[in-house]
Amino acid sequence: MRFKAVKGTRDFYPDRMALRNYLADTWRRVSLRNGFVEFDGPVLEYLDLFSVKSGQEIASQLFSFTDRGGRALAMRPEITPTLARMVNAQINSLPRPIKWFSVPRLFRAENPQKGRLREFFQWNIDIIGSDSVLADAECIFTAIDCLREMGLKPEDVVVRIGSRPLTVAALKRAGVNDSTMEAALAALDKRPKVAPDAFAEIAVAAGIPADSLDELCAFQDCKTIDALNNLDSVFLSKEGNLNAIAHLSDLLQYLDVMGVGDYCRLDFSIVRGLAYYTGIVYEVFDAAGSLRAVAGGGRYDNLLKLFGGPEVGATGFGMGDAVLEILLAEKGKLPDLAGGLDCFVIDGEAGLLDKVLEAVGRLRQGGIAADFSAKRQAVGKQLKEANRRNARYAAILRADGVGVKNLATGEQTNVPIGEFLEKPKAYII
Amino acid sequence: MRFKAVKGTRDFYPDRMALRNYLADTWRRVSLRNGFVEFDGPVLEYLDLFSVKSGQEIASQLFSFTDRGGRALAMRPEITPTLARMVNAQINSLPRPIKWFSVPRLFRAENPQKGRLREFFQWNIDIIGSDSVLADAECIFTAIDCLREMGLKPEDVVVRIGSRPLTVAALKRAGVNDSTMEAALAALDKRPKVAPDAFAEIAVAAGIPADSLDELCAFQDCKTIDALNNLDSVFLSKEGNLNAIAHLSDLLQYLDVMGVGDYCRLDFSIVRGLAYYTGIVYEVFDAAGSLRAVAGGGRYDNLLKLFGGPEVGATGFGMGDAVLEILLAEKGKLPDLAGGLDCFVIDGEAGLLDKVLEAVGRLRQGGIAADFSAKRQAVGKQLKEANRRNARYAAILRADGVGVKNLATGEQTNVPIGEFLEKPKAYII
Repeated sequence: MRFKAVKGTRDFYPDRMALRNYLADTWRRVSLRNGFVEFDGPVLEYLDLFSVKSGQEIASQLFSFTDRGGRALAMRPEITPTLARMVNAQINSLPRPIKWFSVPRLFRAENPQKGRLREFFQWNIDIIGSDSVLADAECIFTAIDCLREMGLKPEDVVVRIGSRPLTVAALKRAGVNDSTMEAALAALDKRPKVAPDAFAEIAVAAGIPADSLDELCAFQDCKTIDALNNLDSVFLSKEGNLNAIAHLSDLLQYLDVMGVGDYCRLDFSIVRGLAYYTGIVYEVFDAAGSLRAVAGGGRYDNLLKLFGGPEVGATGFGMGDAVLEILLAEKGKLPDLAGGLDCFVIDGEAGLLDKVLEAVGRLRQGGIAADFSAKRQAVGKQLKEANRRNARYAAILRADGVGVKNLATGEQTNVPIGEFLEKPKAYII
Repeated sequence: MRFKAVKGTRDFYPDRMALRNYLADTWRRVSLRNGFVEFDGPVLEYLDLFSVKSGQEIASQLFSFTDRGGRALAMRPEITPTLARMVNAQINSLPRPIKWFSVPRLFRAENPQKGRLREFFQWNIDIIGSDSVLADAECIFTAIDCLREMGLKPEDVVVRIGSRPLTVAALKRAGVNDSTMEAALAALDKRPKVAPDAFAEIAVAAGIPADSLDELCAFQDCKTIDALNNLDSVFLSKEGNLNAIAHLSDLLQYLDVMGVGDYCRLDFSIVRGLAYYTGIVYEVFDAAGSLRAVAGGGRYDNLLKLFGGPEVGATGFGMGDAVLEILLAEKGKLPDLAGGLDCFVIDGEAGLLDKVLEAVGRLRQGGIAADFSAKRQAVGKQLKEANRRNARYAAILRADGVGVKNLATGEQTNVPIGEFLEKPKAYII
């Protein structure tokens, strides 16, 4: 009888679990200091919920089944539909802007690839109830605040920022109409991932006129607002486009004064595949561009309405654990997560097990991580176990007192046992 | 269009999420200080894994489905089979005893009841690789260490401790043979939950001779080892039974010197339904006995072998979040979890948004939870928002400096802006 883990899932042995906790704890700490509060929903939702934003075809990409009541349930592949459902249910009582974050466990029924698993964790940051580009700046700042906290520098990661309204305007100018806009956006989203010939094929198949591709690519390749202006000042001078440009330029200005401008650059090749984005869009990549996106997001003002709620501004991003972990490993930024005990309690003489247990009980109750050997054995062997368990101190009990030994320095203090148990934190520092 | 949460699942709005985090954080902190390290497995496992310990009938109690490769997958209803699979895979490299804990998210396809949901969290503590009753004592101590940390006292919760080998011996003496032992144990496990008549019916249906029920009940009703001895010293004097009694008496002695004896009592009506327990068994209840068990566990030395591994001692327990939460609420022990900001940054004059953003960026980078109003509005309104957000300080920026206001005391310190941004922790204490 041999049992294996399901393909594309992970067994979190203690080392790996420590890393998962490091990522989740950092996400939480950074979210809180940026003024977000945490929420979560259930892993299981009605299947219908997921087709609202992503279309019926999503059903083939997630784990779903029919429950005993005959209802189609699905394991969530993302938290955004749940967010929309939950916010809509309390929309009148929640003070705005609503700044929520979550670290959901998510599932998708695809074949696993590098950085893309069937079960994963994703940090989600959302601001609902603000139309201001300040809210977009807040989200991007929060993403960078986290990456910087993890030790990544502007030479390691970059936030590439585009504009959905400008991209839509460029596609309209190229002759794409509303009925094929969604397909055209999805095609354009693929451009950075494929060769030019392959892109041309995809684009034409999606209804983008072949003779407009050069102009479209020239727009996407502009790296600054000035470059865009030089390329085509007539395009830019249209009212909606002027607005979009003003938003981008405010955004970059805000990010600059918040101290993270170095991490950010304009990149009109950032499109985001999904139809529902309405404003600024962005993706975070390793600077070398050799990995999948670490994070992606943008403004989606139609979200709540799509789920039966009111028209309310919304913006946010998601950051998965799998690519982030690969990036941190590549950059040598995985922290040393060796845990350990504060104190290992040793019976230095026979007949003292009760004293060991009493000491361990008292230390733990006082918040000190304490343990002892399962075997009554020689002090030397117990000290070895203390070292293997990465204990900072050993407390060697004898009938006439305790030797508190600092295992890093070897220094030992001898104390009466009552005194040690009364104020252990005076010795276990 | 109206979307609802699936029945028996929970939406974790921020208040509820804070409570969930409080439980999980306390479980983690207590586990670590008791010398356990954390692991987790995937939510999805092959369905087969769950029938090993619980029989084929488990399939009807969990969410399962067939994946695109035609394999039967299930959402885990418990973590123990995953624990056994993972430990078996590394059994030769893991130093023993293995002290692991987990806080898995679990699922069951039952109709929800009070304290029993379709999606829940459960704290699991296990020690593998020790036959000593010390390991059982460690697990029970850890459970109590947690409940005590949460503010529950011996008058609130009680650990009821029984013995699987003594119960099996009592059933054998009553005439139950090996082939019906499992059913007889399951029947006995129901006794505390039903009326005497109903129990008699269940017991007889499970193959327990009707004329032995009085004797069996008298055994189960013994509250001390002395009472047991008075009742039937012949039964007790058998070798296996002597061992079982010695284990119980050592266990109680250990728990006493560890300082948690007040929480523990012998109770031979504790059986645990599952066949696989082999030693001491226990359940934690509210002292009034009006709720389901808060936790349950015991020794299960056959666990690893059952899953294709070696014969190794194992003991542990699980504690769910749902009943614990009800109990804490009933006892008035839910902590005040109102989070909040360290500092709310306010523009005290027009034209200072850039300064606000700079300050917020700097404070957050320094680990200070900081936020600001989405609206450029009067200082009074911004102070109101600071209070609503539960901020400890407000930093009111003006062209000539910052007023750092303690929002609890009303005290205000005026500082040059550069000095504040240089050492914010000198003012935000």
